[in-house]
This record gives sequence, C-alpha cells and structure tokens, in this order.
Amino acid sequence: MAENYTAKHFNVTFPQEYVAQVEINRPAQLNAFFEAMWVELGQIMNKLSHDPNVRAVIISGAGHKAFTAGLDVKAASGGLLSDSDGTNTEPARKAVHLRRHITEFQGCITAIEKCEKPVIVVMHGFSLGLAIDLSSCADVRFAAKDAKFAVKEVDIGLAADIGTLTRLPKIVGNFGWVKEVALTARIFGAEEALRVGFVSRVFDTKSEAIQGAIEVAALIASKSPIAVQGTKEILNWSRDHTVQDGLRYTTVWNSAALQTKDVSDALLSGIQKRKPQFAKL
Amino acid sequence: MAENYTAKHFNVTFPQEYVAQVEINRPAQLNAFFEAMWVELGQIMNKLSHDPNVRAVIISGAGHKAFTAGLDVKAASGGLLSDSDGTNTEPARKAVHLRRHITEFQGCITAIEKCEKPVIVVMHGFSLGLAIDLSSCADVRFAAKDAKFAVKEVDIGLAADIGTLTRLPKIVGNFGWVKEVALTARIFGAEEALRVGFVSRVFDTKSEAIQGAIEVAALIASKSPIAVQGTKEILNWSRDHTVQDGLRYTTVWNSAALQTKDVSDALLSGIQKRKPQFAKL
Amino acid sequence: MAENYTAKHFNVTFPQEYVAQVEINRPAQLNAFFEAMWVELGQIMNKLSHDPNVRAVIISGAGHKAFTAGLDVKAASGGLLSDSDGTNTEPARKAVHLRRHITEFQGCITAIEKCEKPVIVVMHGFSLGLAIDLSSCADVRFAAKDAKFAVKEVDIGLAADIGTLTRLPKIVGNFGWVKEVALTARIFGAEEALRVGFVSRVFDTKSEAIQGAIEVAALIASKSPIAVQGTKEILNWSRDHTVQDGLRYTTVWNSAALQTKDVSDALLSGIQKRKPQFAKL
Amino acid sequence: MAENYTAKHFNVTFPQEYVAQVEINRPAQLNAFFEAMWVELGQIMNKLSHDPNVRAVIISGAGHKAFTAGLDVKAASGGLLSDSDGTNTEPARKAVHLRRHITEFQGCITAIEKCEKPVIVVMHGFSLGLAIDLSSCADVRFAAKDAKFAVKEVDIGLAADIGTLTRLPKIVGNFGWVKEVALTARIFGAEEALRVGFVSRVFDTKSEAIQGAIEVAALIASKSPIAVQGTKEILNWSRDHTVQDGLRYTTVWNSAALQTKDVSDALLSGIQKRKPQFAKL
Amino acid sequence: MAENYTAKHFNVTFPQEYVAQVEINRPAQLNAFFEAMWVELGQIMNKLSHDPNVRAVIISGAGHKAFTAGLDVKAASGGLLSDSDGTNTEPARKAVHLRRHITEFQGCITAIEKCEKPVIVVMHGFSLGLAIDLSSCADVRFAAKDAKFAVKEVDIGLAADIGTLTRLPKIVGNFGWVKEVALTARIFGAEEALRVGFVSRVFDTKSEAIQGAIEVAALIASKSPIAVQGTKEILNWSRDHTVQDGLRYTTVWNSAALQTKDVSDALLSGIQKRKPQFAKL
Amino acid sequence: MAENYTAKHFNVTFPQEYVAQVEINRPAQLNAFFEAMWVELGQIMNKLSHDPNVRAVIISGAGHKAFTAGLDVKAASGGLLSDSDGTNTEPARKAVHLRRHITEFQGCITAIEKCEKPVIVVMHGFSLGLAIDLSSCADVRFAAKDAKFAVKEVDIGLAADIGTLTRLPKIVGNFGWVKEVALTARIFGAEEALRVGFVSRVFDTKSEAIQGAIEVAALIASKSPIAVQGTKEILNWSRDHTVQDGLRYTTVWNSAALQTKDVSDALLSGIQKRKPQFAKL
Repeated sequence: MAENYTAKHFNVTFPQEYVAQVEINRPAQLNAFFEAMWVELGQIMNKLSHDPNVRAVIISGAGHKAFTAGLDVKAASGGLLSDSDGTNTEPARKAVHLRRHITEFQGCITAIEKCEKPVIVVMHGFSLGLAIDLSSCADVRFAAKDAKFAVKEVDIGLAADIGTLTRLPKIVGNFGWVKEVALTARIFGAEEALRVGFVSRVFDTKSEAIQGAIEVAALIASKSPIAVQGTKEILNWSRDHTVQDGLRYTTVWNSAALQTKDVSDALLSGIQKRKPQFAKL
Repeated sequence: MAENYTAKHFNVTFPQEYVAQVEINRPAQLNAFFEAMWVELGQIMNKLSHDPNVRAVIISGAGHKAFTAGLDVKAASGGLLSDSDGTNTEPARKAVHLRRHITEFQGCITAIEKCEKPVIVVMHGFSLGLAIDLSSCADVRFAAKDAKFAVKEVDIGLAADIGTLTRLPKIVGNFGWVKEVALTARIFGAEEALRVGFVSRVFDTKSEAIQGAIEVAALIASKSPIAVQGTKEILNWSRDHTVQDGLRYTTVWNSAALQTKDVSDALLSGIQKRKPQFAKL
Repeated sequence: MAENYTAKHFNVTFPQEYVAQVEINRPAQLNAFFEAMWVELGQIMNKLSHDPNVRAVIISGAGHKAFTAGLDVKAASGGLLSDSDGTNTEPARKAVHLRRHITEFQGCITAIEKCEKPVIVVMHGFSLGLAIDLSSCADVRFAAKDAKFAVKEVDIGLAADIGTLTRLPKIVGNFGWVKEVALTARIFGAEEALRVGFVSRVFDTKSEAIQGAIEVAALIASKSPIAVQGTKEILNWSRDHTVQDGLRYTTVWNSAALQTKDVSDALLSGIQKRKPQFAKL
Repeated sequence: MAENYTAKHFNVTFPQEYVAQVEINRPAQLNAFFEAMWVELGQIMNKLSHDPNVRAVIISGAGHKAFTAGLDVKAASGGLLSDSDGTNTEPARKAVHLRRHITEFQGCITAIEKCEKPVIVVMHGFSLGLAIDLSSCADVRFAAKDAKFAVKEVDIGLAADIGTLTRLPKIVGNFGWVKEVALTARIFGAEEALRVGFVSRVFDTKSEAIQGAIEVAALIASKSPIAVQGTKEILNWSRDHTVQDGLRYTTVWNSAALQTKDVSDALLSGIQKRKPQFAKL
Repeated sequence: MAENYTAKHFNVTFPQEYVAQVEINRPAQLNAFFEAMWVELGQIMNKLSHDPNVRAVIISGAGHKAFTAGLDVKAASGGLLSDSDGTNTEPARKAVHLRRHITEFQGCITAIEKCEKPVIVVMHGFSLGLAIDLSSCADVRFAAKDAKFAVKEVDIGLAADIGTLTRLPKIVGNFGWVKEVALTARIFGAEEALRVGFVSRVFDTKSEAIQGAIEVAALIASKSPIAVQGTKEILNWSRDHTVQDGLRYTTVWNSAALQTKDVSDALLSGIQKRKPQFAKL
Repeated sequence: MAENYTAKHFNVTFPQEYVAQVEINRPAQLNAFFEAMWVELGQIMNKLSHDPNVRAVIISGAGHKAFTAGLDVKAASGGLLSDSDGTNTEPARKAVHLRRHITEFQGCITAIEKCEKPVIVVMHGFSLGLAIDLSSCADVRFAAKDAKFAVKEVDIGLAADIGTLTRLPKIVGNFGWVKEVALTARIFGAEEALRVGFVSRVFDTKSEAIQGAIEVAALIASKSPIAVQGTKEILNWSRDHTVQDGLRYTTVWNSAALQTKDVSDALLSGIQKRKPQFAKL
C-alpha cells in the first residue's frame, strides 16, 4: 500500500496500482496558486519520489474551468510583487529578498522534474502562467481540447521566472513559436499545442484525458522501475549536457543498473509470454 | 519621437509607435550584401537596441524579387574569397586575416540577436544564404508564400560561417532536416519552412506578411518593455545554458526587474480594463 | 576506385561514384547485433571516414523484415547481461567490467557520427532498440512506410545505453514525445516518425527508400567535399556548444577551409552552367 | 540580536557582533560525524544564511585533539557501508538507495558553500576525511600548526564522495599534489597545507587560530553586506563558468546591487574617516 | 614602422622593434580612471591587436606613486554610482542603464585580453581596484617591490564588476587567498603577490621592472608571430573549456597555422645558429 | 603475473608487485619521439589500463641525458611539418590531413590520462616539448634536479598541439607563469618546476627519483583498486565540470563502487592492524 498523503490544497489518490494522481484542489479560484500551495506541492512530489508504491504520477486540476489560472495575483500583489513590502525599501536589499523568494518558489516546482518517477500532466480549461512553468517540469503533457494556454507573465509586467523561459524551448523544437507566445502572451489552444509539440495528445474531454493519462501511467508502471527511472534520469541529464557527457553518464549509471534481476525477469517473461513482476523501488 | 536614422543601404521607418522597420534597400541586385552593408546593418541594430522610442523591430527586403539573395558573390570573390588577395599568400597568415574578417562579419549580424528589443524578420522571394544566417538571429520569422529558401553555401564551396550552422538547429527541432538542407543546398518553400518551424506564419503576399509583422510588433510594443526585454534576454541565455543555470540567471535578472512600477500598472490596468502606459526604456 | 571493403556481417557496395552503401547482413536473425558485428561496423565506418573515394554513406539492412531488431538478446544474455558472468560476482568489480564494455560498444556506434562524410540511414520493417541508437548517429534518416520503430530497452529491464537517450532529444524537437516512447517502449510507425521529425522522408517501399537515399547521397557527393565535410562537422560541434562557441569554431575552421580552390571552381562552374569537378578528399 | 540557535551536536555562539561561530561538539569521539550531525549542520548553515544578524561564520571543533576525525566509521559500517543492509540485496536497487543517501549527505555539507555569508573554517589536530570535504566548502581555511590532514577515504576502500575530489582541485592550484594526497591518503601537516594553498594561515595554537578567524570575520562583518555577499556569490559562480559567463552574471547581479545606499555611505565614511554603519541584510 | 598612436590619456611608445608600451598618463591623480580613459584604452588595444608592427605590448603607469589607484570615485559618484542619476528613478529601469554601462566598461578592459598579441603589465605603487581587473586581463604581470595591491571594491560598497572576481581565481591557484583579499579589501604587497602567483616577478624599482618587461617582450617578439599568437589564443580558449574541447580547438587552429613558412625558417635558423626573420602579422 | 609486454621503443618492467614501469628507450637520440613511438606508447597504456596485475604505472626515460628532447624534428620535418608533402598542396585539403594527424597523435598521448590506473612520470635531463604534453597527462610528476624543462614549441614556429596548452594551466595554478614559459620557450629547472607545482618532488638523481616513484606507486598499489581508480576518475571528471556536475557524477559512480567488499576488508584490516588484500581489478 502507498503511503498516506493528506494535503490541504491537493487531492492525492491512487487510481491504479503504482499510479498516484495529484489534483490541484482550489477550483473556486480556478486553482490559482499562492505560496502555501507550491510549498505543499513540492513536499508531495518529494515524498512520491521515494515512495516504493509509486511508479508514475499524474497531475491534474479539480473542477471544470481550469487546470490552473496561474499565480493568484491578488495574493502576490500584497506580497513580493507589491511596490513596497514595508521593510526593505532599498532596491539592493529588496533584490536579496526577491532572489530568496524566487529561488524557493522555483525549488518547489522543480520538485516535479526531480521526482524519480515519470510525471504526466493533464491540462484542461485555463492553463495560464504557472501552468506552463509547472507542466514544463513534467515528462509528458496531455490536454483536453478545451485547454486555453498562455505564457501570461508579460501581461502582468514581468518575465516568467519559475521555469517557462528556460524549459519550454528545450521541450518544444520551435524557438520562434516559443518567442512569439512568450513575447505576446497570446492564448493558444490544444490543437496548436499539439502541433508544436507542447502536448503529446489532445482528448475530447478532461475525463478522457485523465483516463488516457492513467493508461499510459499504468503502462509505465508495468515496466521495470530500474529501467524506467534510469530512462527518465538519463534523458534529463542529457538535455543539459553534450552528447559525450551524456554517453559517459549513461555508462556509469548503467554499470550499477544493469546488475538488476529485472533484466533476466523481463527476458524470461518475454519468452514465457507473461507479465513480469518487478520488486519495489 | 524616435531618433533619426539615415542609412545608405537600408530604409529605416516607423510604421507604428514604438515599432521600427529596417528595409534592405538594394533591390536591383536582389538585396545581395557586400561588406559596407553588413557593417551598416550592425550599426543600425546597435542604435535601435538602446533607442527608448523603439520596442520592436521588423526587418524586410525592398522590391518584389528577394528578401536577399545572400552574399554578393562577385564583390566577395574579388576580396577574401579570391584565390589570392595579393598580400598574404602564406596559408597561415591568410588564415589570420580570414579569422579577423569572419569575426567582424559575424559580429555585425549577431547585432540582431543582441538587440535588446524583439526582432521580426519578414522574408519573401529569394531568401538565400545570408538570409538564413540573418533571420536565424531574429526572434520571430514570417514569410510570404513565394519565399524560396536555401542554405546555399555548399554550392559555392564553403560551409556557412555567419551563423546558420550554429543557430538554425537551435531554432528548428528537426536536426535531420537541418542537415539535409545544409548538405544539399536545395531550395525549400514557405510551406516546408512553416512545417519544420523555421517560420511561424506564411502570408499570401509580402505586404500581408509585413502587415502581420507590424501587428505582432505593435502588440509586443504595447506590453511592459521591462517584461518584454527580460523575456527575450532570458530565452536567449537559456538556449545556451543548462536548466539550472537558466533558472539562476532568471532569478538574478528578476530581482531587479520585479521592482518595476510596470507590474502594478499592468495589474491595475487589467482590473480597470484599460490599456496600461509604460515608461520608456 | 574506392578501397576494397570485405566484411563478414555487412555488404559494402558503391551504387554511385563517391557513394558507399553499408548493408547489415544477418537477415535470417532480423539483422540483430552481437558484439563482433558492432566492432566490425565501427571499423568500416572509420575506414570510410578517410577514404578519398567516398563522399557520402548509406546504411541499410538486408532482407524484407527488418532494418535491425536491435541487440541479439540471446547472445547478450549469455554475456554481460547475465546475472552472473562467473568471474566478477562483486557488484563494484562487475561495474568496472560493464563500464568498459558499454564504453567500447558506444565507441563502435559513435563511429557513424564521427565519420567525416555524411551518413544516411534507411530503415524498414523492425527497427528496434539499437536501430534507434544507430540511426540517431546518422545525419539523415529515411524510412519505408512499413517501418516499425521502438525504443525497446525498458521492455528488457534496462535504460538504453548506446546513445538513444542522449541523441534522440537533440534530433527530435519534442521532448514529451521522446519521453513517452522511451518510457513506454511502444511501437511507432513511419508516419509518426515523420511527423515528429525522427525521419525526414517516408517511401512506399524499402527499395524506393534506398533509391531516394542514393539520390540524396549522390547530390551531396557532387558538392565540394571541403564544404560538405565542414558543414557536417560544424553542425555536430554546434549541437553541443553555445552559439558563441559555435561561431568561433566556425571561424577557425573556415580560416583554413576557405583557402580551397573549390570556391573558385564552384563559382566559375556556376557562371559557366557546368558541373564542377572537385579534387578528392 | 541574532536568532537563538540551539543544537544538539554543535555549539553556536556569537563572539562578535555579526559573527557566528559553529563548534562541532563531540570531542570525546574526535568530533567524528554520524548522520544526525550532518543533517543538523545543514540546518544551522541554512538558518545562518538568512539571519540578518550574521555577516560572517566560523566553523571549528571542540576539544584539543581534532577538528574532526571524519566519518564515524563504526556508525557508518552498521548502515549503508555495510555489506548488506538487509533490505536491498540486489545491486541495482541498493545503488538507488546509495544515490539517495549520498545526495542528501552532499546537500547538508554543500549548505556551507551556499551560505550567503562568508565562512571561515579553523582546523586543528586530526582533520581527516570529511574534514577536507567540509572545509573545501568554506571560503577561507585557517589551521593550528598541530593540524594533521588527510584525504583518508581510499584507506577505507572508497573514493571520497562528499565533495573533496570535486572541490579541492578548484581551491588548490596544484593538481599533482591533490592527486598524490588523494591517491595515497597520506597525512600532511599545516605547513604543507599552507605551502600548497589549502589553508591561508597557520597559527601556533588552536585558540590563536580561532582568534585570527574572529578578527578576519569581524573585518568582513564591518563591510557592506551587499558588497560582501555579492563578492562571495560572484566568486563561486565564476569558478564554474567561463570568463564571459562570469562577466555577464556580474553585470546582472550588480545592476541591482549598485542601487544600494551602502555605496554612498561607504564613500562618505571614507571622506569623513569614520566607520560606516550598514543596514542589516 | 608602427602606426601612429596619439592618445589623450595614454602615452604609446615603441621601446623596441615590435614592442609597444602603453603608459597610463594621469599621474597627478594617481592614474585614476574615468570613463573617457577606459574607452580610449579599449581603442588603443584594438588597434595594437591588428598592427603588423606590434608583437608584444607592455602596459604601465606614469609617475612614481601609482600604476593606478583604480576608479576615479569622485567622477563615478557624480555618475552611475550616484544615488539618483536624475532620469531613471525606478529600480528596474535604472538596472537596465547600469547593465549597459557595466557591459561597455567590461568590454573596454576585456580588449586587453582579446588583443592578439601578448600583454605584459608592470605595476608599481598603488595598484588598487581597477588595477586588478585590468592586469588580470594581461598575460603576464610584473611588479616593482613598492607595489601595494588591493581588491578594493568592497570598501566602497560594491562587488568588483570589471572582471577581478571572474579572472583572478583563474590566474591564481589559491581560491582561499583570492576570497580573503576580495572579502576584506586588505592591502597586499609585491612579495605576497609573487608568492601566490598573481605576479611572476618582482623588481627593485619601477624602471627595472619596465626594463625586465621590455626584455621579455622583445624575446617574445623575436619568435614566430604565428606561433606566439596561436599560443596565447589556445591558452585563453582552454581556460574556459574542457580538456577535450581544448584539444579539438588546438587541432583545428593548427591545421592552418602549421602551414606557415615560419616552421621551416625556425628549424633552418636553429641548424644555422642564426636568428630567424619572420614575416609581419 | 602481469601480462607480457614486448615493445620496440619502450622497456616495460615490473619493479614491484602491481607496479609497471614504462621506459622510453631511444637514449642515443635523447629519447626523441617519432610517429611509431607515440603509437606504441598509446597501445601500451591501453593495455596497462585493463591489466588486472597493474595498479600503478611509472613512465621514465632511458639514459642519462634526457627524459625526452621532444619531437624528433628531423623525422617530422620530412613529414607533415614539411612545407609541401607532395600530395596535398591546397591549404584546405592539407588542413584536413593535418587535423587527422594531430587528432591521432593527441589520442596516443591522451591514453596516459585515460589509463584507469594512476601514472607517475619521472623526468630528468632534457624534458622538452612533448615531455610537457606527455607528463601533463600523468597524475603525478617527479623530477631529478638536473631536469631542464621547456615548452619548446614556439621556437620551432608552432603552438604546442599535443595538450600542453590545454592541460598545463589546469595542473599549475599560476596562469601568468604558464603563459610566460609557453610564450618565451625559456628553459626552467626542477626547483622552479617544484615551486609552481608542475612537479611534486625533486630528487638529487634520476635513480633516486625513480626509487621515490616506485615507493609512491607501491603505496598506491597497496590500497583498494576500486577506491584508487574511482579517485583518479572523479578527479579528472571534476577538472572539466562544475562542482554540481562533479558531485552528481561522484554520487552515481559510488552507487556501484560502495558495494565493494574492499570497504569491509579495509575497515577490518584497520581494526586488526594488518594489511588488507584486495581482489584484482
């Protein structure tokens, strides 16, 4: 049995063996994020990362209207985005506080990328601003056809700083498109997202999208966790390194990973046409 | 009012407030470039970069036939591409002069990338060789449907050296396609360019393409220049760095940028449903 | 005349002047690879790389059923993938042997990438596992429409370690798709491969695909080998470096390459509307 | 007043205004570390990093015999260094647990490097193994002349993995010396440490060394904290980046930091020959 | 004959064939720098870089008291270091102007590093702040024994931003020492500078130091300029790259440089025991 | 028993258990290198790297006069350093051949760095040119006091291209000194080499130096080979990577290496005060 996950702003459920689903649960406010939410999300992801009963994770949003409308601007504008936070009026000292704040915020969202288990994000309705930062940390992105995306930050006077500008161009191989949507903040839909490769699949409804995500997650969860977690890790490492460094890292990684019993179990199961059972991890 | 731009080989105009248009103006020779032209282009871009009356730049080509046919080979073959330039017959010393020359040439074209304001290139007709180097420095590329592109350099016996081979694969997420067109020098059209992501949009005519560019430029120019310039800078930095270095750079950048009045102006304008006015930059 | 290539597991032929074709020749076992095969392939590629009679290389698979089904698992499972190799039962010492083995294996396949001449891979039928590692080293990938691809490794309990996880994301600008196929090991067809940019063209049959590859190879072979080899080298270097480092490397490279007679020959041939003849390289 | 720091394994005191001293407090066991200790040390460093009453930190060891003898091998050999930890006998799965463990351990020690305030380490007596990892994270290293150093790890059958092998060569510009002491595990004394640049100063006694450290710390604490923290950050960033990236990061950093009132306060104090008072940070 | 160099703030002379000396010429103000000076210095260095009559450059300071006391703080405090520059009171917009200013300043000083010919700096008397930034760009540093050095910036409330923090640790292999002098701003003398490797030689007087620099410069100027300039370039490139990238860059560089007649001239002169004469560059 | 090593230009002996000594054996020509020699040296190093009976390697030179006088210039000047090699008179094509040649040459010498076992070089007498390239690949350098070193290449009209310019600055933390000796080609002696850290120890005679090297090699050979080889590998990796990448690589490496029996053997031997025996590797 998976560990018990009780969270204030998220529903954590297990729709299938080895598959966890994390639902952003603030539908009345379009699942908009305030600080306590991203802190809690980071904690959940860190726990899932090491939970041996979890092999794949789905993130989705509660309600019909939005995956998330992004940052709760009202909450933020009373805080660090305010003209004056009362205590540090000098620009240099205020900059120190802003750096600490952004670093912590980034760390919470990056926990999705660092999660050892693959993460699938399912987006529907409004999927703005932080929705792009957050989903760009995931491994796979699915959408319902009603999804409305935007790199919304320039519309509130700032450059996106929780990861979109860094990760989106490494996900989507069309730098001109990334620049256009980031510089104009225009809305784009699920079909456009599919065409440029931001999402992998578009479903008619949110519930079909979640069902599709569960199926893929379950498929991944049926594989050797040694193989799956190594694949995620090596892909993420390689993104940020030269081919030669990627090859070397793979070599060192697999020098331990190939010593798993899963290889012979998988081979034998293949011969015997049965589904292998792999030890937990 | 924007500064006065008088140039010999380019027309610099302002079709909209905060939007500059730089037109290559040598239509009788298919806008082919010789040295004085790229030097002047670099100077124009450097000036636009710091001009507070400019928030977005469009580059296009005069005449009906070509954005640019690329390097003026006749001018070049009398110069550094000649078998002998008369003074440095020794290969090692000639190599020094070639390095200085290429470095300076690259610097002029790179000024487009370094321009703090977003640059949209509109291409039509022949868009060969240097057209690809040049437009790969821009943020967004539009085309008229009559555009004929080619990474033409191998056809004159050389590997493209003003940036195409370095930047094109980072713009277009299809390395096999890049290699094929670079190794064969074959012509490709606007639709193919759209499909692989080299251009973002294709218009029926050059004038519609320019109109489309002006609209996007005007949209960008209506946003906070702090937000827009930060977005361009962080995207370009992130292209060349790891995700972690991208996140950190973003943090340090925004620790100053978030202290702008534009954030509260943008938020207030949003609430009041009016268009915000941002201070010059 | 090209050098004589006699190989045990490959057919090396010359369908056109300056064009070599390397055919994997183990059709009865779906061209599955064992150690002696990849060692021989590495040797062939190294020889082609410096052969002045070769300007482009095609790799294909013999028989109707498969380009290659990948690693010959039976051979491998008696070797390093076995639970115990008899001599090094301690995990740390076994890891040393695995590192040496993977490094050598990677080196043989990387010889395709390091080959100074462009390489086109033509895939048909089963193209699994090692087929993806191998073809990701090539410059251009073509497919017959019956091709069935899979990053198959997780199905045998391991993360792909001969280059797929490192190179595929740098070829295909859709990181979500790469992750999905690598984490699920699902089969994908030629049309999907074309859509995401893994292959550049799809042909109705294997023989048409090979014919198409020969035409492109012959076209490349008709260009200046100085220009072509420089183009390949600079593109591969740029993939792993910043734009600035790419530009500098190009400058230094071309300071020697521009001193070729091929430039004036190409220019003169262009004026005279005849096909230039370039010296061997 | 500085925050209250109560710790189980460390004494945290404030020998001067703005100067904190963290003393490893397990003298009966030569200050050898077990897991709870490095976890607590990480927490203390993170707290000091943001404490506005702290501008410089000293780390030292209690008792006469040792700064620290390193890892408490007895505790470790019952844990992860044991042949079998009972639960994960498969090498691949055990490797996963080892990676998680080493990553967490590294993170606790790296907190010293990440501390925004400069850290001075004072070493005396046995300063083995982890003592080198730990002090290599600090900014400045002082020693009493009785200090006995060793990169001790090869003597217990392992390569140092908490940072020594990565950081020591970046501190000491003598790679041959680093390799010799790391490969032989031989003891070296304070004078040799001074000669190669591992420590900056050698004092006759531990108490003189601590007094020297307090003086330097107090000197640093008398400077603008904006200037000091920026200097530490930029030096650490530059260590891991090219000169060009270092210059750019400096530019972006100082674009906020130069807007401090500390600059005019420092200049005015210089003219008036008085000691400036800077706001907390 | 070398080109004519007339400068307002510098004396440019030619104490030997092929050796240029650039003397900072504002002795009444301890050679302190204001903006027009660093702009002019950059221009001089760029010109020397391509002047075929120059093979080595010496930089020194006029007068008895100082190489340079660094930034002219009075001039700077009326400018960008002032609390308010009158035009851009918003922190985010002021940050933009500061970035542009620092970037330009860095560019002028970096011209010393980019100069194709080796640069020797001779320091005497006060050598503070900018003196360290400037001399860290040079290839070799000599000092008179009266030299008083300091990384002075923290004493005026800022982190050094013209290159000291980035380059000094790559020159001096003692990171603890660099941190100590940068964090404390303390004065250090010529002997200490020699011991840590910041300067290569210490002379009794300024004039002996200049004489020593001329001798070394003349020795360098007697060598093949192809060999000398390649050596400088490859050393600087290698500083910022991996060993493998350094080796590859060297290979590509020398593929042109080895085609120089200087090699046979040097070899023949060696056999004939006479001094070779090399063509200008 | 170690494998049998018969070589034409080198003597390979085993002065101690697990310690190999490779002696350059062309004393009549001051051990100057021609192509067949570096090819053979590369082969020997590759074989030693995997030989389980070898745990440390010493490289020295036969005869009294020289470790090696470097490249055999006479042999080289008839080959690639000749003005014309008869076949490739065009600079661009000659550059291709030079690149291939340098790459192969570098690869042979780099085999010393890639050797999994630590390498100690002992230098005496003339140690010029290639002597520096070669010894910079080693882990530790010892010298007899009669050693005369020079980065000699500029004296024959070329920039050193077998690794000195890339590796020497990463060994010796004094960039000014490296530049001076590389730009002037001046001779420096053993004491100077010791002072700057190029060599670790100086002995009165060559035979004492070799005896010293054997003792250090034997000490290293007495340690766990898992620990020793990991230490060498991680140090070399870390030299070329950021601290963070170094830490991560260490983690992945040790996740396999810590599973060695050597750890408990080493700990038990420590308790029992006896010398541990480690399995071969």
